[in-house]
Amino acid sequence: MTQLKPVPHGLLQAFRAYESALMSHDVAALDALYASSPTTLHGDADGLLVGHEQVSALLEADGGAPQRRIVQTHVQVIDDDHALILAATDAEHGGRGLQTQLWARDPVRIEHGGWQITAAHVSTPAPAFDSRIWRVVGDPLISSHTPDGALSGETLAVKDVVAVAGFAVGAGSPAWLEQAPISSEHAAAVAQLLDAGASVRGIARTEEFAYSLTGLNAHYGAPPNPRAQGRVPGGSSAGSATAVALGHASIGLGTDTGGSIRVPAAYQGLYGIRTSHGAVPRTGLLPLAKAFDTVGWMTRSAFLLQAVGDVLLPATAVSTPTKDEIRVVPSLVGLATPEVAAAIEGALPESEPLDWSPQTLEEWREAFVTGQAYQAWQAHGAWLETRLDTLGEAVRARFETARSVTRAQADEARAVLAEARAEILEVVGDRVLAYPSASSVAPTAADAESVRDDTMRLTCLAGIAGLPAVTVPLRTATGLPAGLCLVAAPGRDRDLLALAADL
Amino acid sequence: MTQLKPVPHGLLQAFRAYESALMSHDVAALDALYASSPTTLHGDADGLLVGHEQVSALLEADGGAPQRRIVQTHVQVIDDDHALILAATDAEHGGRGLQTQLWARDPVRIEHGGWQITAAHVSTPAPAFDSRIWRVVGDPLISSHTPDGALSGETLAVKDVVAVAGFAVGAGSPAWLEQAPISSEHAAAVAQLLDAGASVRGIARTEEFAYSLTGLNAHYGAPPNPRAQGRVPGGSSAGSATAVALGHASIGLGTDTGGSIRVPAAYQGLYGIRTSHGAVPRTGLLPLAKAFDTVGWMTRSAFLLQAVGDVLLPATAVSTPTKDEIRVVPSLVGLATPEVAAAIEGALPESEPLDWSPQTLEEWREAFVTGQAYQAWQAHGAWLETRLDTLGEAVRARFETARSVTRAQADEARAVLAEARAEILEVVGDRVLAYPSASSVAPTAADAESVRDDTMRLTCLAGIAGLPAVTVPLRTATGLPAGLCLVAAPGRDRDLLALAADL
Repeated sequence: MTQLKPVPHGLLQAFRAYESALMSHDVAALDALYASSPTTLHGDADGLLVGHEQVSALLEADGGAPQRRIVQTHVQVIDDDHALILAATDAEHGGRGLQTQLWARDPVRIEHGGWQITAAHVSTPAPAFDSRIWRVVGDPLISSHTPDGALSGETLAVKDVVAVAGFAVGAGSPAWLEQAPISSEHAAAVAQLLDAGASVRGIARTEEFAYSLTGLNAHYGAPPNPRAQGRVPGGSSAGSATAVALGHASIGLGTDTGGSIRVPAAYQGLYGIRTSHGAVPRTGLLPLAKAFDTVGWMTRSAFLLQAVGDVLLPATAVSTPTKDEIRVVPSLVGLATPEVAAAIEGALPESEPLDWSPQTLEEWREAFVTGQAYQAWQAHGAWLETRLDTLGEAVRARFETARSVTRAQADEARAVLAEARAEILEVVGDRVLAYPSASSVAPTAADAESVRDDTMRLTCLAGIAGLPAVTVPLRTATGLPAGLCLVAAPGRDRDLLALAADL
Repeated sequence: MTQLKPVPHGLLQAFRAYESALMSHDVAALDALYASSPTTLHGDADGLLVGHEQVSALLEADGGAPQRRIVQTHVQVIDDDHALILAATDAEHGGRGLQTQLWARDPVRIEHGGWQITAAHVSTPAPAFDSRIWRVVGDPLISSHTPDGALSGETLAVKDVVAVAGFAVGAGSPAWLEQAPISSEHAAAVAQLLDAGASVRGIARTEEFAYSLTGLNAHYGAPPNPRAQGRVPGGSSAGSATAVALGHASIGLGTDTGGSIRVPAAYQGLYGIRTSHGAVPRTGLLPLAKAFDTVGWMTRSAFLLQAVGDVLLPATAVSTPTKDEIRVVPSLVGLATPEVAAAIEGALPESEPLDWSPQTLEEWREAFVTGQAYQAWQAHGAWLETRLDTLGEAVRARFETARSVTRAQADEARAVLAEARAEILEVVGDRVLAYPSASSVAPTAADAESVRDDTMRLTCLAGIAGLPAVTVPLRTATGLPAGLCLVAAPGRDRDLLALAADL
């Protein structure tokens, strides 16, 4: 222990009381040891909390910490009422942690001599890897053998519905993974990206069978959203998105059926593309709903988003739209929350609005959901029939609904979708439409299901008409990520990628 | 930014100057912003530094930090001369960091208004995984399919000279890995541990061809030593040892030819066993020197060390030696540094010393090194002949020496080793000998080669006579890890494991 001035009376007792409360999961005692002020701070690997209320909520949720012991303590005494303590800890299950606390003495308080923590910064030993984000990860997991390709040096986070040779496809479901065969070949998209020089960093978590938009996998936990702490990562390409947002990989390879690229990209501030239906071969992909399934990817830059497209997309002539050609659709912007709507409007202030208000949008969404559900059960019903209880609650509810969709209902939905497709294609024409990628910023887990219908009203349009959709990151007034969705006619994927790189 | 009292004059300018110096790698400016006191503190994921001198050395070595920007700043003003700043940072390559700084104003200093950092705690975004420790890692990488085995719930860190089906054996060498075939079967030991319920967490780093004792892989960096910050992890089973010390895995599976289990275990405060020569099948192991190669493993508990032995070792009747039967060998303890010798003597104060002073120990060591080198070149010379330049400096020097060993020299060494073996076996008899696992605590990288001969004089004994050797963690007076080595006659592996569990 290093110190110059004498340690003030009661400080070390309070420090020990804190450790003791932490080790015994005494939430009330911990709570009382944090200063009850709106400026109290608590920072850890998950982010920074401000104010005693937020800190209390964390303590309540955590209920304590892994067992550990303090191996070094250093006190910097500032005055009789203030001191900083920096301590090193040995975790019982291995690894070294650090904690810094600024302590202040409130002369009015009796407990612990009035000593309380006004700021805490905690570092705990990192696990081998974050299994909420990854299933398997390597340096690399699969190397490229193309040293000088267009994507050399880039790393892939492959969504766990996409085949990587030598590994089973896990589909975010432990029960599925247990019986899944080892893939003997890479998915076509993976093979092409390897040929172009990218290596596979690892296999990233998805929600079960990619049938969700929140990213809240019931078995492995939700990948964190590093750009919006405490909010969902967005799904179903959640692990790929978080891996890219955290810099674990540069390219998040995934799939998008009803928004599974666009939503996590929007929630985490990434660029993303859902390709035109059928534009990129789906060989090696576990299907969800074949009529809508597409390959997609996410990056931290528009440049890299486009570079991946140069590898995966059919070689077509690019006709880069100008910013002037973008037509914001006010009726669709109006479906978003005010903060997202403001971000969209702020991003394209001079865009000419497109006067299109699909009156039957809710009917389209319902038909899309029904059509997707029918196909999802066709793809997985035989296996899931006796295993619905292996699924997490949200995805199970979705598959239970899917199981109940009759052939007649599916036919009816198909008819609605055919009409919708015709209208959407006509409206899009040779335009580039702009609207929100998701209806809101990333919600909290508690609010996640409540925004699903709103977001699906927006994301289903590209799904129904097989359109390419690029999402460009925006920030709301409060600094949270949001997504600007740009769509165009089927096959114009490269045009949209060029436009995003120009914006 | 939250604050109650006004921020003191000049503080934020100093804070910004620090950030600017960090981003421009201005080491002198950074250095001047840390208080030049023996109590100045700097903590990060690698540990805690105390005193300006240590902090300066870190700044000099790091030369800066990854590019990032501050996204939130919170100042807690203590008085006119003291304030804490806690800031959140966004790393350019993804992820969120945190830094806490206690600032103090020295009225005598002019620069930056006298403001200096007296304590800093920095958290940077964690990478996908620590590629110094692991080559590939998963949740799990290979699952067991034995839900209720003796080792269910345990996880293996498999040294990268041991085959894991579906992966190549990388041997710590990028050049070797590039041409190595994918293993179609698990090594026998891996298969047995999987059958017993353990899963494979991942493939852990080793030094090239397991031909070293430091753990300093020239290509992937040295795994950290969490129990002795700034010191080498010990090799060659370095990644497996660090993985276990950090809690990334519970069992570090490796090999020991001349100390490659015992040395990292001793340096990192782990239990470890080098098995009797031939006791555990070596099927699926990349050889280094077949006459001495053995399977070994490391754990954080004696109980688990023994449980693994129950799976891998031949089923023999166990005759647990008592503590009284341990015979400390003063002549061998005397080969260690005083702090390690004191730890050994302190651990067994009542043990009857064994009066054995092998006069020709240095000759034995030399013969062991020669015999090992001859076999190592026989195993790898054909491939390495044209590829010595792919090796890191230390291992290359060793293989260059190995290449020059003549058949005559090898024969001569073999004769010396035969005599040594006879003497060692006779001395050991039915005793349990105790001496240091390594001659010193973990050295720094700069000192690592200088302790090699001293440690080899101790570790070669078990190698020469094919003895089982268990290492039990001790601590020196200053709290650094050291190892107590217990050896017995060949085949008494289970007896030693039982003894270690009883100590």
